[in-house]
Amino acid sequence: KELFTTDAESLILGADIVIEVMGGLEPARSYILQAINSGADVVTANKALLATHGTELFEAAERVGAQLYFEAAVAGAIPIIRPLRESLAGDRVKRIMGIVNGTTNYILDKMDTEGASFDDALAVATELGYAEADPTADVDAFDAAQKASILASLAFHTTIPLESVHREGIREISGKTVELAKKAGYVVKLLAVCERLTDPATGEEGVSARVYPALISREHPLAAVHKANNAVFVEAEAAGSLMFYGAGAGGPETASAVLGDLVSAARRHVIGGPGLGASTHANLPVLPISAITTRYHVTLSVFDRPGVLASVAEEFAKHGVSVELVEQGTFGSEAVSGEAAPTATLVIGTHAALESDLAATVSALAQLDAVSSVVSVLRVEGA
Amino acid sequence: KELFTTDAESLILGADIVIEVMGGLEPARSYILQAINSGADVVTANKALLATHGTELFEAAERVGAQLYFEAAVAGAIPIIRPLRESLAGDRVKRIMGIVNGTTNYILDKMDTEGASFDDALAVATELGYAEADPTADVDAFDAAQKASILASLAFHTTIPLESVHREGIREISGKTVELAKKAGYVVKLLAVCERLTDPATGEEGVSARVYPALISREHPLAAVHKANNAVFVEAEAAGSLMFYGAGAGGPETASAVLGDLVSAARRHVIGGPGLGASTHANLPVLPISAITTRYHVTLSVFDRPGVLASVAEEFAKHGVSVELVEQGTFGSEAVSGEAAPTATLVIGTHAALESDLAATVSALAQLDAVSSVVSVLRVEGA
Repeated sequence: KELFTTDAESLILGADIVIEVMGGLEPARSYILQAINSGADVVTANKALLATHGTELFEAAERVGAQLYFEAAVAGAIPIIRPLRESLAGDRVKRIMGIVNGTTNYILDKMDTEGASFDDALAVATELGYAEADPTADVDAFDAAQKASILASLAFHTTIPLESVHREGIREISGKTVELAKKAGYVVKLLAVCERLTDPATGEEGVSARVYPALISREHPLAAVHKANNAVFVEAEAAGSLMFYGAGAGGPETASAVLGDLVSAARRHVIGGPGLGASTHANLPVLPISAITTRYHVTLSVFDRPGVLASVAEEFAKHGVSVELVEQGTFGSEAVSGEAAPTATLVIGTHAALESDLAATVSALAQLDAVSSVVSVLRVEGA
Repeated sequence: KELFTTDAESLILGADIVIEVMGGLEPARSYILQAINSGADVVTANKALLATHGTELFEAAERVGAQLYFEAAVAGAIPIIRPLRESLAGDRVKRIMGIVNGTTNYILDKMDTEGASFDDALAVATELGYAEADPTADVDAFDAAQKASILASLAFHTTIPLESVHREGIREISGKTVELAKKAGYVVKLLAVCERLTDPATGEEGVSARVYPALISREHPLAAVHKANNAVFVEAEAAGSLMFYGAGAGGPETASAVLGDLVSAARRHVIGGPGLGASTHANLPVLPISAITTRYHVTLSVFDRPGVLASVAEEFAKHGVSVELVEQGTFGSEAVSGEAAPTATLVIGTHAALESDLAATVSALAQLDAVSSVVSVLRVEGA
C-alpha cells in the first residue's frame, strides 16, 4: 500500500515507462507530455486522447526519441495496432471495416437475434453494465469515431482528425429496420469504415473515415460477431482480407494489451535507440462523406396506387443511381407506418453509387406526391 | 537483370538482411546460418526448417545478436507470430486452435458444402493448384504439424520438437463421416491444437501439440473458415478468445508478410542492439496424445439386436468415460457399411474424457460381439 500515491507528477519524474489508464483528456494529456519530455516511454489505453491530441503527443515523443504504445486503445486485447504498424508495414491497406464498439454491437445483436426494440436492448445493456448511464459516447458513435480516427491514421500514414470522421449513431435504428434487414439477408452493424478512394471532385487519391450503422450480408465474417465482441476486417493489396476478432473491452482484456505494450517498451528500453514514430508521410486528403461510393437500401412508405414505382424509379435514374432490386409491399402497410392512408412499403436496393448522388435522389424522393415518407436509408457494406 | 546471381554465398557475405524463401532444409539451413554468423538479420518463410532446426537457428542468432523473423512461416499474411511474441507477451496463452493448412481446409470444405468424396475433392484441389502432385505433406498433416510446432513453441515458451507433435491426416475422412457430422451440427476441420494441460501421470503442468481432423460446432468461428483460408483461434488468460483470419498461402500474401518482417528488420538495423531471442524459458514437459482430455464422437456399426446399447454403454462406463448422447439407427444400415448382416449405426458422444481412457474403451468396443466395426472416432473441439 505504501507504493500508492496521489502525487502523479513526482511519480512520472523518475519513471522509465509510464502507463496511463486514467482516461479523459486532462490531466492525462499533461501527464503524458510530462512523461515524454522527461524521456519516459508511455503506454496508454486512452483512445479519446489519441484521437484528439494524437499529433501533439506523437510529435513530442519523436522530438525526444520516446515511444508511445497504445494497443489497448482500439478493440481491447485484439492485436490490431501492432499488425497495422508492423506486420502490414510492407503492404498497402485499401480498406478497414471494424466493429469497434462493444456496447452498440450488443444492442444491435440483441435486436437482431431476439427482435428487441432499441430502447429495450439499451435498457438491458445498461443493466448489464455494457452501456453507461449516459450512453451517448457509445450510441451516438463518438467512441467508434475515435477508434476510426486512430485506425485510419495508422492504415493510411495520414493524420485523420477526429472532426473529419463522418459519424452517425444507432438511435434511429428501429426494430422494424432490423427485421427488414434480416428478411433481406442482412444484419445491421455499427461499422467504422476507413478506405482509400478517388476524390470524385479532383480525381486524386484520398481517404475517408466514417462510422455509421450499415447493412452487411449475413455471409460476411463480420455478421457473425455477436454480443459485445469486436472485430476488425482489413483488406490489403497483397495480404488480401484479414480479420482480427475478440473481446473489445473489459478489465483483464485491456490489461493484457497494456502488459504486451509494457513488455515491448521494456525490451526497447534495454536496447535503447529511437522507436516507431507516427507515420504520416502519405499525408493524403481526407474526403467528406459525399465522396464515398457504396450500395444503399432505401426504404420508402408510399401510397399504394398506380404509377408509384415508375415515378420512384425515375428519380433514381435521373440522378444516375442504378437500381439493383425492388421489393414492394412485402411487409404490409401498418407494419411500417401508422398512417391512416393506404400505404405500402418499397425497398429499393441500389448498385454502387456516389453518396452525393444518392443523397440528391433521396431528397427528391421525399418531395414526390407518391411518397408518404422515407423510412430509412442504409448503406450496404461488405459486398 | 544484372543484379541476379546464382552465387548465394557471396551475396550473403555482404548483406545486412537476408531473405530466405527458397524452402526445404538444405541448403536453406546452411545459408541462414552463414547469414547469421556474418551478422545479418534473417527473414524466412521456411516452416519446415524452423520446425526442424529452429532451436539451432535461434541459438546461433542469439549468440551473435542477430534477429530471425518468420511471420510468413505460419498462416501466410495473417499476423500471428508477432501477436504471439509481442502483443500477448504480458498474458498467458492457454490454448491455440488453428486451421493452418489451406489445402486440407479446401478439401474438407468442399466435402462439407458440396457433399464431395475425399478423392473427388482432392482431385479438384490438385487441378486448381491447391494440392501438389504428391499431396502427402498437406493431406497427412506434415505441413500443419510443422506449424503447430512453431505456434506451440512461441505460445508456451518451450521448445516443441516436431517429432513430439501428434499427427493424424485427413485420408480416412469419408464423405459419410462429413455427412454424419453435418447432421449432428458439426463440421470436420483439420485442427492444430496446442494447449497447456496437467499431466495425468504426474499432476504437473505440461503442454500438448497435436494435429488431427476434429469435429467443431457449426456455431464456432472456426467453422466459418471456408475454402483455402486459414484462421488461428487463441485463448489467453486475460485477453480471452482472439481469432486471426485470412488467406493462408499464396505469392502476394507471403510477400506481404515477408515485407512486414523486412521493415521490422530494417528498423532494428537502424536502431542496433539485440532483438527478440527465442523464448523457451518455461521449458514445460511436452505431453503425449494419451494425456489430453477432450470430447469424442465414436461411430459404431452394430448388429441390430436387443442388448446392444447396454453392452456398448457398459464398456464406456467400465473405462470411466461418461456418455453425453447416443443416436441410433438414424442413417440406416447400408448407409455406413456394405455388409450383408443387418446392422445399425450407433453414434456415441462423450463428455470430456482422457484420451487414454477413450482409446481403451474403443479397443474394448471393437472386441464386442455386438459391434460389427468401429466406423470412426473423432475428437470434438471448440466446446
